[in-house]
Amino acid sequence: MTAKNLDEIVALAKRRGFIFQSGEIYGGLQGVYDYGPLGVELKNNLKAAWWQSNVYERDDMVGLDTAILSHRAVFQYSGHEDTFADMMVDCRECKHRWRVDHLKNGKCEHCGSDNLTEPRAFNMMFKTRMGPVEDQDVFAYLRPETAQGIFTQFKNIVDATSMKLPFGVAQIGKAFRNEITPRNFIFRVREFEQMEIEFFVKPGEDDTWHEKWVEWRYEWWKQQGLSETRLKLLTQPTEELAHYAKKTVDILYEYPHGFEELEGIANRTDYDLGSHTRSQSDFNLSAKVKPNTDSTAKLAILDLQSNKFIVPYVIEPSAGVDRGVLAVLNEAYTEEVLGEGKSRVVLKLKPHLAPVKVAVVPLARNNPAIVEKAQEIRKILQRLGLGRISYEDTGNIGKSYRRHDEIGTPLCITVDFDTVTEGPQYHTVTLRDRDTMQQTRLPIEQLSAYVREVLF
Amino acid sequence: MTAKNLDEIVALAKRRGFIFQSGEIYGGLQGVYDYGPLGVELKNNLKAAWWQSNVYERDDMVGLDTAILSHRAVFQYSGHEDTFADMMVDCRECKHRWRVDHLKNGKCEHCGSDNLTEPRAFNMMFKTRMGPVEDQDVFAYLRPETAQGIFTQFKNIVDATSMKLPFGVAQIGKAFRNEITPRNFIFRVREFEQMEIEFFVKPGEDDTWHEKWVEWRYEWWKQQGLSETRLKLLTQPTEELAHYAKKTVDILYEYPHGFEELEGIANRTDYDLGSHTRSQSDFNLSAKVKPNTDSTAKLAILDLQSNKFIVPYVIEPSAGVDRGVLAVLNEAYTEEVLGEGKSRVVLKLKPHLAPVKVAVVPLARNNPAIVEKAQEIRKILQRLGLGRISYEDTGNIGKSYRRHDEIGTPLCITVDFDTVTEGPQYHTVTLRDRDTMQQTRLPIEQLSAYVREVLF
Repeated sequence: MTAKNLDEIVALAKRRGFIFQSGEIYGGLQGVYDYGPLGVELKNNLKAAWWQSNVYERDDMVGLDTAILSHRAVFQYSGHEDTFADMMVDCRECKHRWRVDHLKNGKCEHCGSDNLTEPRAFNMMFKTRMGPVEDQDVFAYLRPETAQGIFTQFKNIVDATSMKLPFGVAQIGKAFRNEITPRNFIFRVREFEQMEIEFFVKPGEDDTWHEKWVEWRYEWWKQQGLSETRLKLLTQPTEELAHYAKKTVDILYEYPHGFEELEGIANRTDYDLGSHTRSQSDFNLSAKVKPNTDSTAKLAILDLQSNKFIVPYVIEPSAGVDRGVLAVLNEAYTEEVLGEGKSRVVLKLKPHLAPVKVAVVPLARNNPAIVEKAQEIRKILQRLGLGRISYEDTGNIGKSYRRHDEIGTPLCITVDFDTVTEGPQYHTVTLRDRDTMQQTRLPIEQLSAYVREVLF
Repeated sequence: MTAKNLDEIVALAKRRGFIFQSGEIYGGLQGVYDYGPLGVELKNNLKAAWWQSNVYERDDMVGLDTAILSHRAVFQYSGHEDTFADMMVDCRECKHRWRVDHLKNGKCEHCGSDNLTEPRAFNMMFKTRMGPVEDQDVFAYLRPETAQGIFTQFKNIVDATSMKLPFGVAQIGKAFRNEITPRNFIFRVREFEQMEIEFFVKPGEDDTWHEKWVEWRYEWWKQQGLSETRLKLLTQPTEELAHYAKKTVDILYEYPHGFEELEGIANRTDYDLGSHTRSQSDFNLSAKVKPNTDSTAKLAILDLQSNKFIVPYVIEPSAGVDRGVLAVLNEAYTEEVLGEGKSRVVLKLKPHLAPVKVAVVPLARNNPAIVEKAQEIRKILQRLGLGRISYEDTGNIGKSYRRHDEIGTPLCITVDFDTVTEGPQYHTVTLRDRDTMQQTRLPIEQLSAYVREVLF
């Protein structure tokens, strides 16, 4: 299964309305994408599954939604202003600019020249001038990660919720990185979405919690339909670790362009809260942090055993939403030979991720009894709150099934003459399963319960 | 009912974790707020209710999620680059800058001086430099409204979905405006969220659809708990209409600071699609548009009656998410006198909006049978996918009820000795209703169905 290459996914994504190039009618905005009518549902479903599993089904987690515009000091003390940079080179021939580690063979990808400049650091944060004053120094950053919002609100969260260690804060939101060379469709982009957890633990218990989170996150991705054969855990070599990290394990997925990071689970020690806290010397910080003279809050929590305020360690499972969407799309993409020279493309998405949950298909669109019954069923299903229910009255049932195969609709419900004619099949509909293509009949009054069962 | 003033809401919002000032530990970022553990749930619930009603329960609507970073041409042709400005004045004494129409009596709000400059136009769009090139002219806008993403993707949407007129596109997302004087908590801010619909209709049918949408949107806000006594419709006087609008009706809500716009429903004619389409002269546009020499797509749709491609009119119901959150918080805020010198604060939120759906309360936190049963009930309820279920084991049942009154939890479920002791009440729990404070007993096996019923 899976797509043969990225182009197949890109083509399907555009044709069916999953993902479009942003600003396409004006030539496009590089590294920026829009989610179409189906894409927005798929993406929202993935985010909802993450929130359900990590916030609603746990007692040790709360949610958060912090702003994109960020105070400059946040990224001065986080270390981003100094170190959040990629090395780039310029081609002296054609003037194209490249990220060094993306260039194969040290040659310009555009013109092939090897007449390149020495590598220079390029900070990837977007800035914007804020407030109506002309002073160029008054600017805000667009956050390059959602995590910092969790750290800087740590005190407010603890005060409001009375959470005790260990506990976590979960956040989903947009982040922005001025990538030198965006590539691979929605894999490496300039505007993207993250699903991040900062899980705060007592120092000394961090290794155990790190292991648990690696296991939980790996299992979660499997539950989204990713196959173990295309998942891999990679422990980052010590010499490649970020300066704040004690250990990082990446969950890699085999995209059409190769194994790449889908999620990283890092043990960030007390670096982040330690960087943003005031009175740093009050705490026995293990991380090396920049002296903070601006923060107004102690980012510490009472340790019930020692009855002292401590700066907890943090385990960070950080996943890319768009990378997740690309992975489940790739995984679900299937071309099936049906025999007699026929084939079909079917998106075998997990039902909870499918953009359209059910298609209601009247067999004849000019038969008032059939149409009325089909509309009635559609309305009942729409009010279940399970997601999008399509009404499909193109009149060609085979084509309807194929279209819904291609967008991953788990279930088609066909209302036919039997449904509205007294007799043994009266008030039953045909259920047609996306994956098996099997058709079965079900009494209408059992439909809601059945659909609820299948789609969860 | 309702809060006495904005300060009461601000205080509750911070104390309980609904809304915090962004970047607070560094002095705060003016006009930018973070949603805390309860705020994110309330906001997400409001957005989900809107999506359910406008996308899932309709056949003539699809969703969309376009990017925040926007191609400059989009806002050149939309008219924003020329006209999206507020008039501002500077105080010559203290150098503060103000929005003219926010100043009372023509005096500086900071120092009281009337020594002000002449008003000047100030464009409210945020810009950011994009790509690794040093050229200052290569920039993108942070969108000041989500609407333009819908217009510029019109052709891709129609091609992918085969929608026919009339139909709409719904979008929820962040937008950014560099407000000169942000104020009134989350009412007027620099980073905010919108829920926008662009509903495309045949010219000539626009007035009827406009009326329908005003009615639908007014009803929807009532369903979110807003009282008719605090809602008002205001038809904008012709001389105050935006240049593209044929008619605009605002839904005003009575905030603590007065009646202000919660949502606007505008008839924008064919101005937007007409502005962004190529071959403008092919269409008999009624709006006056800037000649477009850059667009690569015809933003038109086949009219089945005339068999001609036409540029549809658009009705735009555009609501502020944050303004909605502030309105439902204000509306729900209630101080009740309970007699005997006691009172309580209770947030009478509609159950579907409540941040925490149910609190499960073990009467004794040291009784293993009670704790085990309470944990079991919590887990069952958490898996229903209805939202946050709290486990509340502080041991003081009265305090638990008060805390959950104040955050709007509709239902507390108390597990007590009767629950785990053989006898007439065996395997029943106490349900305690937030609004009436009435307590009733229910068998555990009926709990899931009951909770589902109450919370929808």
